[in-house]
Amino acid sequence: MNKTDKKKIDYTLYLVTDREIMSCATVEESVERAIAGGASIVQLREKSCGSREFYELARRVKKITSARGVPLIINDRLDICLAADADGVHLGQKDIPCSVARKILGADKLIGVSAALPEEAIQAELDGADYLGVGAVFTTSTKSDTRPVTPDIIRQIRASVSIPFVAIGGINSGNISRLYGLGINGAAVVSAVVAQNDIEAAAREMRAAAEKL
Amino acid sequence: MNKTDKKKIDYTLYLVTDREIMSCATVEESVERAIAGGASIVQLREKSCGSREFYELARRVKKITSARGVPLIINDRLDICLAADADGVHLGQKDIPCSVARKILGADKLIGVSAALPEEAIQAELDGADYLGVGAVFTTSTKSDTRPVTPDIIRQIRASVSIPFVAIGGINSGNISRLYGLGINGAAVVSAVVAQNDIEAAAREMRAAAEKL
Repeated sequence: MNKTDKKKIDYTLYLVTDREIMSCATVEESVERAIAGGASIVQLREKSCGSREFYELARRVKKITSARGVPLIINDRLDICLAADADGVHLGQKDIPCSVARKILGADKLIGVSAALPEEAIQAELDGADYLGVGAVFTTSTKSDTRPVTPDIIRQIRASVSIPFVAIGGINSGNISRLYGLGINGAAVVSAVVAQNDIEAAAREMRAAAEKL
Repeated sequence: MNKTDKKKIDYTLYLVTDREIMSCATVEESVERAIAGGASIVQLREKSCGSREFYELARRVKKITSARGVPLIINDRLDICLAADADGVHLGQKDIPCSVARKILGADKLIGVSAALPEEAIQAELDGADYLGVGAVFTTSTKSDTRPVTPDIIRQIRASVSIPFVAIGGINSGNISRLYGLGINGAAVVSAVVAQNDIEAAAREMRAAAEKL
């Protein structure tokens, strides 16, 4: 996508998949239901499957997201992004550096970077990141290697960069209001949506709450 | 590398790294010693480290292999290959399909494909593979998901494709002679070199034996 398309991206409800905790049978189904409920962007995160399986899943999910006009981001794996022609990648601080990823992917792919500190956020923007994932804002059961990010740090990050960012980490319908007024562009959700019995209803509730960010 | 450079590649002793069983402290050291002993091509195989770590290791190993004029192949990960500017990738049957990898990597990168059957070998050549890894030719402790490949199957594969291939799987100084006369272009070795106390001497012995393939 070009710069204009990138600016139009709606980060309000950023769904991150998790096959370990999802309440339905397939990742595709969890994505379909979450989009039906209001997920505006989807990150496919797979940490333990082989490359062929990841690629084939990404292709199937891409068909779903494309048909609904929702960007698909691949966690960590630039090669899966290119192979499945996804819209971009999300890079943690332990993944391939953003500056290197930008050279490989070119200007048109979306690149998101995880940041827990203002200096990480600033560096990511300098390295060509399109958006940030800031967290963990709350304690979370789906990632074990996260550092806590306080409202004060979120404000510092907001003041330090001009690119959009989503907050991530343990966000649910009970605590999302604590993130209001901090300049966050969207809420990234995992268990608050995919682990709920009714994924579509959970996404709808989180979407409504995330609109108030 | 261009077509002419690809034709000059020496597959005689194809080293596959394995940090789990190597006798020295670092992957870099195992590669250096193996090349000193006669390894003519190196595949960096990392199954459990993060992308940043894999990328940084690949860059360090690339400096070693480049300085010695030895091609560096990355197992599975096209993105690491591109990020570290390695010479190519090796793809298993459960990795990204060769035809897709070729589109991403372009004509100049080397692509190897694992094949245990003549039909897999034929398909790989059709899909643009530069070489094959055929195995497991012997039972091996370093991979658990391999199928046995008999001398008869090796002959069938040799008759089915025109690209070079290395044999892989449990090859050591005691059994390599059983592979002589089958049209194999090189021996891929893991434990027979990197797990030995004197990696350089082990590589030298395997190199001499592989010259007779």
